Amino acid sequence: MQAEIVTIGTELLLGEIVDTNSAWIAERLMTIGLNLFYATTVGDNLERITQVLRTALERSQVVITTGGLGPTVDDMTREAVAAASERELYLDEGLLGEIACFFSRHGRGMTDNNRRQALMPRGATVIHNPVGTAPCFAVEHDGRLLISLPGVPHEMKHLMTTEVLPLLQRRFGLQSVIRSRRLHTAGLGESAADARIGDLMEAGNPTVGTRAHPGEVDIVITAKADSDAAAEALIAPVASELRRRLGHYVFGSDGEGHGEVVLRLMSERGLSLATVESSPQGDLARMLYQAASFREVYRCGMIYSDRCPEPLGLPLQTPDRPPLADQALADALAERCRQQADTDMALAIVGPSDLGKSPGPLVYYALATPTGLLHREPRPGRGGPSGRGWLVHLGLELLRRHLLGLPEEG
Amino acid sequence: MQAEIVTIGTELLLGEIVDTNSAWIAERLMTIGLNLFYATTVGDNLERITQVLRTALERSQVVITTGGLGPTVDDMTREAVAAASERELYLDEGLLGEIACFFSRHGRGMTDNNRRQALMPRGATVIHNPVGTAPCFAVEHDGRLLISLPGVPHEMKHLMTTEVLPLLQRRFGLQSVIRSRRLHTAGLGESAADARIGDLMEAGNPTVGTRAHPGEVDIVITAKADSDAAAEALIAPVASELRRRLGHYVFGSDGEGHGEVVLRLMSERGLSLATVESSPQGDLARMLYQAASFREVYRCGMIYSDRCPEPLGLPLQTPDRPPLADQALADALAERCRQQADTDMALAIVGPSDLGKSPGPLVYYALATPTGLLHREPRPGRGGPSGRGWLVHLGLELLRRHLLGLPEEG
Repeated sequence: MQAEIVTIGTELLLGEIVDTNSAWIAERLMTIGLNLFYATTVGDNLERITQVLRTALERSQVVITTGGLGPTVDDMTREAVAAASERELYLDEGLLGEIACFFSRHGRGMTDNNRRQALMPRGATVIHNPVGTAPCFAVEHDGRLLISLPGVPHEMKHLMTTEVLPLLQRRFGLQSVIRSRRLHTAGLGESAADARIGDLMEAGNPTVGTRAHPGEVDIVITAKADSDAAAEALIAPVASELRRRLGHYVFGSDGEGHGEVVLRLMSERGLSLATVESSPQGDLARMLYQAASFREVYRCGMIYSDRCPEPLGLPLQTPDRPPLADQALADALAERCRQQADTDMALAIVGPSDLGKSPGPLVYYALATPTGLLHREPRPGRGGPSGRGWLVHLGLELLRRHLLGLPEEG
Repeated sequence: MQAEIVTIGTELLLGEIVDTNSAWIAERLMTIGLNLFYATTVGDNLERITQVLRTALERSQVVITTGGLGPTVDDMTREAVAAASERELYLDEGLLGEIACFFSRHGRGMTDNNRRQALMPRGATVIHNPVGTAPCFAVEHDGRLLISLPGVPHEMKHLMTTEVLPLLQRRFGLQSVIRSRRLHTAGLGESAADARIGDLMEAGNPTVGTRAHPGEVDIVITAKADSDAAAEALIAPVASELRRRLGHYVFGSDGEGHGEVVLRLMSERGLSLATVESSPQGDLARMLYQAASFREVYRCGMIYSDRCPEPLGLPLQTPDRPPLADQALADALAERCRQQADTDMALAIVGPSDLGKSPGPLVYYALATPTGLLHREPRPGRGGPSGRGWLVHLGLELLRRHLLGLPEEG
């Protein structure tokens, strides 16, 4: 079984938009055991779209198009699908009625262009679109199935999930499901992870692989089975074994971020948190602030530049030393931040505002708690998004280890 | 002249990576007057890559591939290009020497796999890659030009800029250049911009168009001419006319962000800034912090959650009112922030920590200056990246207008 995606829209070929739909669809097709073999982007040109669709229908059992279903004359997917599958377009009166309803419900007038959206290739199955005005459809052609979806990501995602994946499973009798679990680790490099779990990465089903991100390594377990339950039964023992070997390096699973995990642990303990940072340039506050369920816990974040003479009222420089960070400053900032924000704990990540590409100046960590100050070894920091990601993960690790009663460094 | 891109790599078809290279290449091809007609992604499969390249060489004068040039057996671009252009591969001894040098310079051993990278399609022109180990090449085939580049974005970008664009211009005698200028505006919606400059958007060369972003609208002027100077001569009068009509809504041009503009204005006046925010969730501090040239100006950013009882020591709630924001709080926070950070000015953007999708609760603005407090009308805020973008732009506009001596609202 071979699937392909055809993305339609000149704006993509002008470089104005990056296509994120294809990667999303690819991931979802995998979960029902469909392999994506090609993804093609083509502009709003009837002849070229038709040609691309003909090629796709020759080589793939499943063809999914996105885009080109809007009301303007540039929207040519309907015409191209009709041409490539050798049928004519007709005006679907039922669909026209629905579109008219949509406009009257929203108090807007319908234009002639909107009538174009009720055109359907003869014999197509209409896929109703409750989240937008572009009607979608599926066409059978020589045993192949061509499905046309809107390019607007939230409409496409809704229709893929509720309509298209079940349709594909029914139509092609896809019995097997593919399920993945991700374990998120921090503090371990990819090669250190490999040394601990390399042998498990040689198995066939489930497979185990690693994916490195800024500051963390994900371990991905993927199983293929006849049902969700069977896939879960394959995954569970491997996940346990991985957790056993990786221990407290695993901070969460399946998308729960490091910040969320730490705030959840604090919430369970009824604790509140504030932060102060220089080198992470606001990434620490941002990560914690994004965990919107834990506003009660995370109360305040302070970002300062090392040109600020007295962040939180503490002098960064004295007459006999240049502006600089050290453990004493990190400690003092964490303590002052905890007092000012009136929280149970405060985390400080302190170093130069701007770090270079290679690990250079030291970055210092301090955690102020009701019972005193905790540190972790300062480490040379690196700038850029990925370097800042490391700084943030190391700081959160200090906090997580303290909350779990683990030793300070792994 | 028709160009297409072939992106090679199974990881893209698994949805693990979003392809950002194609949009970048598309934009650059436009600057030399080359139109991109297709972009195809194909996995690491020799037969399928070869087939895609054959199709591409049949219909396009220029074919650019990215990816599949690494040392592993999964890297099959060299083989596929040789097959599609009907030539054999040979081991280029000169190239092999360079690769060996690279490894010895970096103190690493060369494996047999690395030798694969010295394989070249017979007759190909080697494109030297000073920023990585994957050698690149160009092949002429039936009057078409096929160019293979690495998939690593920074290597691809370097080679496109320094080697590929000049090569394409020479090879196809591309005389014309396409140049764009962007004017960035804030405070005007897209339709309000349209009302002021709509007539200029009907011209042919240069064209004028608008692009809406969170909180700002860009006006893009694009000219096609025989030289940079001629393109500039077409753009300059249109840019002046646009600036005349849009007045102080234009805050910058060609990528200078709103934050950078404001900090530059402050730097020119020898002023320093601190900020305090709740609703923008750290986006204000982040935008200002990213303008790394102005650390001297932007010294401190404070982010607080509305569950923080006393940000900067100011109580958010009293016994007879729920946690809330009002103009008095925004003023007090701006003033306190200015004192604590010891800066010339402080900007406060204050409202609920979490805003919904539709404009709801009011967000308040205050600017503390040496001569007193300034406000702008509070406005209902909206959550999400684009809603937060608006909040930040409105706050920066208050500051920019004050610095330029403009009236408080436009």
